[in-house]
Amino acid sequence: MPQDLESLVTAIAERARSASLALAVAPAAARAAAIMQIADRIERSHGALMAANQRDVAAGAALTAAERDRLTLNPERLRHLAESVRQVAALPDPLGEVLEESTRPNGLRIRKVRVPIGVIGVIFEARPNVTVDCAVLCLKSGNAAILRGGSEIFETNAALAALISESLAAAGLPRDSVQLIPTRERAALEVLLRLDSHVHCIIPRGGEGLIRFVTENSTIPVIKHYTGVCFVYLDRAADPAMAESIAVNAKVQRPGVCNAAEQLLVHADAAGALLPRVGASLAAKGVRLRCDAASAAILAKAGVAHEAAEQADFRAEFLDLVMAVRVVGSLDEAVATINRDGSAHSDAIVTADGDAAARFLAAVDSAAVFWNASTRFNDGYEFGFGAEIGISTDRLHARGPMGVRELCSYKWLVTGTGQVR
Amino acid sequence: MPQDLESLVTAIAERARSASLALAVAPAAARAAAIMQIADRIERSHGALMAANQRDVAAGAALTAAERDRLTLNPERLRHLAESVRQVAALPDPLGEVLEESTRPNGLRIRKVRVPIGVIGVIFEARPNVTVDCAVLCLKSGNAAILRGGSEIFETNAALAALISESLAAAGLPRDSVQLIPTRERAALEVLLRLDSHVHCIIPRGGEGLIRFVTENSTIPVIKHYTGVCFVYLDRAADPAMAESIAVNAKVQRPGVCNAAEQLLVHADAAGALLPRVGASLAAKGVRLRCDAASAAILAKAGVAHEAAEQADFRAEFLDLVMAVRVVGSLDEAVATINRDGSAHSDAIVTADGDAAARFLAAVDSAAVFWNASTRFNDGYEFGFGAEIGISTDRLHARGPMGVRELCSYKWLVTGTGQVR
Repeated sequence: MPQDLESLVTAIAERARSASLALAVAPAAARAAAIMQIADRIERSHGALMAANQRDVAAGAALTAAERDRLTLNPERLRHLAESVRQVAALPDPLGEVLEESTRPNGLRIRKVRVPIGVIGVIFEARPNVTVDCAVLCLKSGNAAILRGGSEIFETNAALAALISESLAAAGLPRDSVQLIPTRERAALEVLLRLDSHVHCIIPRGGEGLIRFVTENSTIPVIKHYTGVCFVYLDRAADPAMAESIAVNAKVQRPGVCNAAEQLLVHADAAGALLPRVGASLAAKGVRLRCDAASAAILAKAGVAHEAAEQADFRAEFLDLVMAVRVVGSLDEAVATINRDGSAHSDAIVTADGDAAARFLAAVDSAAVFWNASTRFNDGYEFGFGAEIGISTDRLHARGPMGVRELCSYKWLVTGTGQVR
Repeated sequence: MPQDLESLVTAIAERARSASLALAVAPAAARAAAIMQIADRIERSHGALMAANQRDVAAGAALTAAERDRLTLNPERLRHLAESVRQVAALPDPLGEVLEESTRPNGLRIRKVRVPIGVIGVIFEARPNVTVDCAVLCLKSGNAAILRGGSEIFETNAALAALISESLAAAGLPRDSVQLIPTRERAALEVLLRLDSHVHCIIPRGGEGLIRFVTENSTIPVIKHYTGVCFVYLDRAADPAMAESIAVNAKVQRPGVCNAAEQLLVHADAAGALLPRVGASLAAKGVRLRCDAASAAILAKAGVAHEAAEQADFRAEFLDLVMAVRVVGSLDEAVATINRDGSAHSDAIVTADGDAAARFLAAVDSAAVFWNASTRFNDGYEFGFGAEIGISTDRLHARGPMGVRELCSYKWLVTGTGQVR
């Protein structure tokens, strides 16, 4: 570990800690004003941002087309970005809300009040909107942010960080409220992950490899956002049209995201009636069905294209137009299958039977459990949070969509009249 | 790593996961009945427990007198233990409560419901009551527990685990809901800390060394319970009698615990009036005062015994009848000092000035901030939680006292009428 890298990152964290204390007592209006400034400057700085971005694109000769597309800015994307930043500015301020209040028999008044976490480190890959999203969501929740972006987007991030710094200063907030780690060295990340006396939370946004690396190397608490192995279960009492519509939506509306369904379970009593219709509709959308023997037999009889599944398909996250299909003997078997082979992310039951739905909702151990709705609704916008930093796959602190309130902690304020123990 | 140790601990975690799914849907009455059974069996099994405990005491020749005292059971301690277990059984059930509820414009009904975390690993040192406390608090909150106690208490824990297992079976719950790691091998702990696919949370209860080891080696989220460097600040407008009573209580009522005060700050304008009285009272209780130059001068003039502080004293956790003392020029200096040199645990202001108190409560970045009350009240019982597993020094998930509700997560239940995106 080069000594200067260690000092560089440690100094950033110390300044972030100091800024976080100022941010925690800054008025909501100042934080909102800084966020509006960021939106304005994104629009005003088109030229500089696009020039920096072009340097990244030019340097990224080894990128795939999809990767290059993700990292490329254009005027329309910048307009969208500015608009989403303004939406965060307009959200209700999360800080200061009294979450609980009580008066103890000894007269002590105890209030639990929402406050920022403090300093949040966000590690992410190459998407310019993520840089800005993370900065403004942290600001809205009163946290100082340390951003560590992918090296493919180094120049763009530097331009964005400069613009954010100016916006903070213009709103009278410390420039160190949002800092970018200004080096491509991987070792800088390892330093950051061990600065647990200054940094209170790490949020890795990226693929499983990045999250795993962060989890293994961090002494700071990490909130993970793994992708999901999500199930749709068609119960004995499922309405056929609803079964078709939910299964198709959950699988095909956006197959590459974490709340897209990867597997279809069908109750044996209804499989003969439901599977030909649902399978045909999925196949018509280009979905390859990887089937167990029972579902394959039904689809074969109905003339629906399908493949034989391998064992690994039943725990797979395809993130593609591929879906595993199994027939189960009972609701309990569906629940046990989901709890064993799923990833506890987003799972749905389609049924007209309220008792069956209640048992499913209670017993499926997932962040979000749906009855007669698509798994795709496990999302901060759809839940009414206004914005999200991700969908937590952890069970501590935040589970499911994380908006600005989930970027907060709380503290206890206790007021007395001289009480002692 | 011996292969059999890896298999042993992995199998325990797999069984715990399986038990946790059953516990999550078990009725509250069954969980409460299991806890009552534990209390009954602690009383009925006096003989067997004491015999096992005597084997531990006999083997612990190298222990200090205080350590031996902590690990030794006697009939009175067993009665107290059974009583505290019955109190946990009687607490309101935390599970199933709807924490938030909304209906979205598309008609989706979204409920956020409190559920168990899942599987909790508790690592602790040598106190028999901790073994039982952790087991019953996890059960009350519907979590499966994996307990890893200190080797000094191995035999006692085995006897307690057998009794807990019988209690679970008698109440119709899986015996694997509470399991003890049945080996003294340190490597078993290292295996446990990496079983993140089965275990959802680790709670280390013990000294800083243990917590640090767990944090460094765990890929499972950890909730830390570090001890505290807590401050009492006597403001310019402090009532002298209240200042004396709170400073003395915070320091001497139980100096070895995390919420005891370690440092006294006094506003310069009031130091001449307050310090001689407060200092004399502390000194009379046997407290050694480690003073900066300004406070030393005042105490010297008043004839109160004191010592010159070294720099390290101003960030020290004495856990003893020792207190650092400093004079500060302003409320802002007091806040900055606490945020810089304290541990963000429990800090108090004594003042009759409501504006000063409000500024202090807002700006001190600690888990619990007190106005005209002793820091010693940062405690689950005092907050009305009925029981606590500890006082979290983390900012994620739970901050401050952790009762049964803080041992819970939540999940989202979404009910629709066929909605898709």
